[in-house]
Amino acid sequence: MRETEILKIIRRHIAGAGDDAAILPFRDTHLVVTTDMLHRTSDFPQGATPITIGWRSVAVSLSDLAAMGGQPLGVLLALGDPNLEEEFFKGVLQGAIACCEETGTSLVGGDLDRHSELTIVSTGIGEVKEPLRRNGARIGDLICVTGRLGRTQAALRLFSQRKYKRANELFRFIPRIAWGLELVGHATSMIDISDGLAHSLHLLARESKVGCATEETSFPVISDLHEVLAPAEHSEALLFGGEDYELLFTLPERLIPAIDKEVCYSVIGKVTKGGVLLDGNELPDRGYEH
Amino acid sequence: MRETEILKIIRRHIAGAGDDAAILPFRDTHLVVTTDMLHRTSDFPQGATPITIGWRSVAVSLSDLAAMGGQPLGVLLALGDPNLEEEFFKGVLQGAIACCEETGTSLVGGDLDRHSELTIVSTGIGEVKEPLRRNGARIGDLICVTGRLGRTQAALRLFSQRKYKRANELFRFIPRIAWGLELVGHATSMIDISDGLAHSLHLLARESKVGCATEETSFPVISDLHEVLAPAEHSEALLFGGEDYELLFTLPERLIPAIDKEVCYSVIGKVTKGGVLLDGNELPDRGYEH
Repeated sequence: MRETEILKIIRRHIAGAGDDAAILPFRDTHLVVTTDMLHRTSDFPQGATPITIGWRSVAVSLSDLAAMGGQPLGVLLALGDPNLEEEFFKGVLQGAIACCEETGTSLVGGDLDRHSELTIVSTGIGEVKEPLRRNGARIGDLICVTGRLGRTQAALRLFSQRKYKRANELFRFIPRIAWGLELVGHATSMIDISDGLAHSLHLLARESKVGCATEETSFPVISDLHEVLAPAEHSEALLFGGEDYELLFTLPERLIPAIDKEVCYSVIGKVTKGGVLLDGNELPDRGYEH
Repeated sequence: MRETEILKIIRRHIAGAGDDAAILPFRDTHLVVTTDMLHRTSDFPQGATPITIGWRSVAVSLSDLAAMGGQPLGVLLALGDPNLEEEFFKGVLQGAIACCEETGTSLVGGDLDRHSELTIVSTGIGEVKEPLRRNGARIGDLICVTGRLGRTQAALRLFSQRKYKRANELFRFIPRIAWGLELVGHATSMIDISDGLAHSLHLLARESKVGCATEETSFPVISDLHEVLAPAEHSEALLFGGEDYELLFTLPERLIPAIDKEVCYSVIGKVTKGGVLLDGNELPDRGYEH
């Protein structure tokens, strides 16, 4: 059974599963909560240091909070490992704590378990008055993306080439909490592009019942990608390679001045009536499955 | 490296790790958050149904919230499985949702991942104005336990005997949320006894800097335990067998009338100046490691 089919079941069973984080109305505000499971074989390449592993485990959950415009309140980490070696474990904690501090939050708890394969589940809890959802894009809005694309795909290639130093640096991405906070009240919809840009565009379009027209030349690309991937590989990495954890958002053009100085972003297209297009051609909804 | 040693490291690194759930001050109240990792080999015996697996996964986190006196706001489930079979997955979700409903909360989100061994991580979020902690027991307080002890140990024996029907029933314990809520403002300290009664008594004593004197004849025992275990096995199962998920709490005797009608409990001892005793003898601090 494919993960996407199961996600449909979750959608039928679990309210709010159509966004990056679950939304819990609480008094006059909302709590946003998200949980992510990472494994040695699928998520941490050979050469990833314990610090990188801890950092990234926390960062993926914080990215989900960022995508809702959430202010993080705390992070929990559940760790299963066959050896539970002190040095490894200290490194993971050190990375996790550093990533929390980077975004002004803290590691508040966790659980430990002996397990056949390294497994880390991080949970992020945040608060936001008006959560930014996937379903608010309006025809005519600009489509924007934060930071630079291709970071994780470049890192994975560098790991495979055993160029571990730069690979680790790239892998320890900064969750876009600060930018997410700035976008609240301005952006009309938002998502993080952990499942790939193409799939994220399709998700935004589907949830908002609109279309997207994008231009590949407008994509902001990290220079490492040019250095490590052949030109013929770029499109595939940018569109369908996942786990970039930048924010994809829509915004009325008149609100650009409100975010211009606070958020590092690029305009990559426009919200349209229907269809998800790249340079005028249909963009396939090929996702990245974790 | 032993789990207990690593827990010491967590304690040094993570604030609030000395309680069942992490405490996040939020406005004029507190959020309590907990995460628990469960695995096929260590936590779900042969014969446990998908519904039982889903129920129990949620119940262990809700029990942590109950131990803080928390009102649950929502639960998240991260599930890793080699097959992701629809029928199995539906059963797990059904059990998880049923357990949430039992305690007046709901499943609000989750994550899915392909994994070599069934792994479920549940996260519970709750609220409580004044969290019940482990460190408030005072000399002279009564030591009480909710419900009946030995439930999980009886279930495990029944699973091994392939008496799956009753085993599954026992395994689907009800998290003591309702009783936990009643105990707020009355109990002086609280913990759930997921790691075994003996170890939980030691934890309460250590955190509160007091002692405990308990009497084995006062322990409330579930009748199944008498039926499936030989008399010689009872003490071991009650004291050192873990995962009972009842609440162990301390209370000034004068407050008994305040909880008497609302909470099903038994008095099993008294808080003393020092030492953790059973029938006058030192009780070993042997824990149950998950």
